[in-house]
Amino acid sequence: MPEARYDVIGIGSAIVDILSRTEDDFINAHGMVKGTMALCDAARSKFIYDRIGKAVEISGGSAANSMAGIASMGGKPCFIGKVGKDKLGEIFIHDIEVLGVDFAGSAGTLPTATCVILVTPDGQRTMNTFLGACTEVGPDDIDEKKIADSHVLYIEGYQWDTPQAKAAIRKATKAAKSAGRQVALSLSDPFVVDRHRGDLLGLIKDEVDILFGNEDEIFRLYEAGDVATAVERLRGANVLAVMTRGAKGALVFDGQTTAAVDAAPVEKLIDTTGAGDLFAAGFLYGYTHGRSLTSCARIGAIAAAEVISHMGARPETPLRDLIVKHAL
Amino acid sequence: MPEARYDVIGIGSAIVDILSRTEDDFINAHGMVKGTMALCDAARSKFIYDRIGKAVEISGGSAANSMAGIASMGGKPCFIGKVGKDKLGEIFIHDIEVLGVDFAGSAGTLPTATCVILVTPDGQRTMNTFLGACTEVGPDDIDEKKIADSHVLYIEGYQWDTPQAKAAIRKATKAAKSAGRQVALSLSDPFVVDRHRGDLLGLIKDEVDILFGNEDEIFRLYEAGDVATAVERLRGANVLAVMTRGAKGALVFDGQTTAAVDAAPVEKLIDTTGAGDLFAAGFLYGYTHGRSLTSCARIGAIAAAEVISHMGARPETPLRDLIVKHAL
Repeated sequence: MPEARYDVIGIGSAIVDILSRTEDDFINAHGMVKGTMALCDAARSKFIYDRIGKAVEISGGSAANSMAGIASMGGKPCFIGKVGKDKLGEIFIHDIEVLGVDFAGSAGTLPTATCVILVTPDGQRTMNTFLGACTEVGPDDIDEKKIADSHVLYIEGYQWDTPQAKAAIRKATKAAKSAGRQVALSLSDPFVVDRHRGDLLGLIKDEVDILFGNEDEIFRLYEAGDVATAVERLRGANVLAVMTRGAKGALVFDGQTTAAVDAAPVEKLIDTTGAGDLFAAGFLYGYTHGRSLTSCARIGAIAAAEVISHMGARPETPLRDLIVKHAL
Repeated sequence: MPEARYDVIGIGSAIVDILSRTEDDFINAHGMVKGTMALCDAARSKFIYDRIGKAVEISGGSAANSMAGIASMGGKPCFIGKVGKDKLGEIFIHDIEVLGVDFAGSAGTLPTATCVILVTPDGQRTMNTFLGACTEVGPDDIDEKKIADSHVLYIEGYQWDTPQAKAAIRKATKAAKSAGRQVALSLSDPFVVDRHRGDLLGLIKDEVDILFGNEDEIFRLYEAGDVATAVERLRGANVLAVMTRGAKGALVFDGQTTAAVDAAPVEKLIDTTGAGDLFAAGFLYGYTHGRSLTSCARIGAIAAAEVISHMGARPETPLRDLIVKHAL
């Protein structure tokens, strides 16, 4: 690969997570679908927040978590996103910069986004996102020079829920492609796939080199009922596909062969928030550092295992140490 | 004691703490005095925040921590303080209410107060407080009915640093006294004692029934160089005095006899933030539940030991369980 200032530049939602433990009954009683992300306005967000128990606030956001993970591995990430001109925005920027991520975003006019995340006793997370300033991301936020100076442009699927973001992503992918860089996409959420299947399939066909999704998301995207069908349809899409499967590990499909990687052991599953984000982080760190595809997925599995062993979607243990420990 | 809706009603600063680990060099290089609290404006607060490493945000505030502790013991506390009309204010109120404290405060026009707390490797904390909306606390915030309906009115010494708070405290102590209730005061910080010695001595003489302070604060207040001198001067003040002494435990002086209580064992000292607040919480819980003075101090010691074994000034383990476990 030609030299680049950044390993990965991510475009995503700049969110501060509000995490709270709850029972399944609460999820059901409030009309949430366990394990998914629902968008909500400020009033609904406040309604839910007023009804949850003890909470902790930890910076989050899918692509932001991935960039934080890459920094924790010793990589060079950059993040583009929009915060509000408020204390949570300051906290978001502080938390990401202190990990070593270059924050190339700015402050909008709306408040900083928050996500009320309910963690059930099985460790599964259910998210309620108030997008706030994230909805203001547009083409002007795209720094084409920084994108051209990054090995990989990483886009979270959640971006499809914000109106001007599509134009921003088009500008970003164009900048990446013109510079001969790779484009990676995370599908983010099964409902995101349902809402934007056509757009996502078009983007994957035209622009995406590396696709991340869990089994449910990829099955929904290709309306497939089993792995064989999904793989067949991925072959036509001409992408490197990384399908995470929770405790079953992950599959990497390079267009010809499918490699399976086991999940890394976890002493106690505490909170799955960020599992997919950190898997992508590990994979992309390996990918931009010349590792084999299997090693990339193993690094992803180790990073995901770290993040699900505590509350919050940002690594607590320096991931570089874990990579060294596992000789990856 | 006559019946009361609340065990303790606390007046204090409504603060969200921003906690970060640092080395002693950082404290020295930035002109801070280790172990104390310094007031700072928004610019100085931002200056420090921009220079610290990884941080966590946890609701704090001295009297608020004490009320949170009493709730965690199963007591009935109320808190009066002022937040901003912002997300941190919402978080502060959520965090205190969810523990079972009745929030009798309101929102001011300035931002919610923050305290950048630097925790050095020895577990000691050094605080930089931006008071924001806390400076707006005044007589109008004092709910005399709620004070009259509380066994003890608890005031933090920090309140002396805000201009209208003195009038508020005069109104509050008057309401407590008229209803035949007790008034407790925490000295809070050695520099607070230096700044307001005259005011504090006057308040203690006229209004205070129970005085909390650490050795340094009480020595400074009475310009005493040893325990014997301090006790002699406390005798003249006619208060029940509780002097905390860190790892050396605590002394309780009831005007006639001095009782010593050992510190509760701590497996690993992580962060002393809130030690004094939780000692006071335990003491006042015992005091308002008919325990002997020695038992009160033991409950205080156990609560303090819990809070210094993790980051942040709010209990993580339900303190009621610890009281039961220790048969107090």
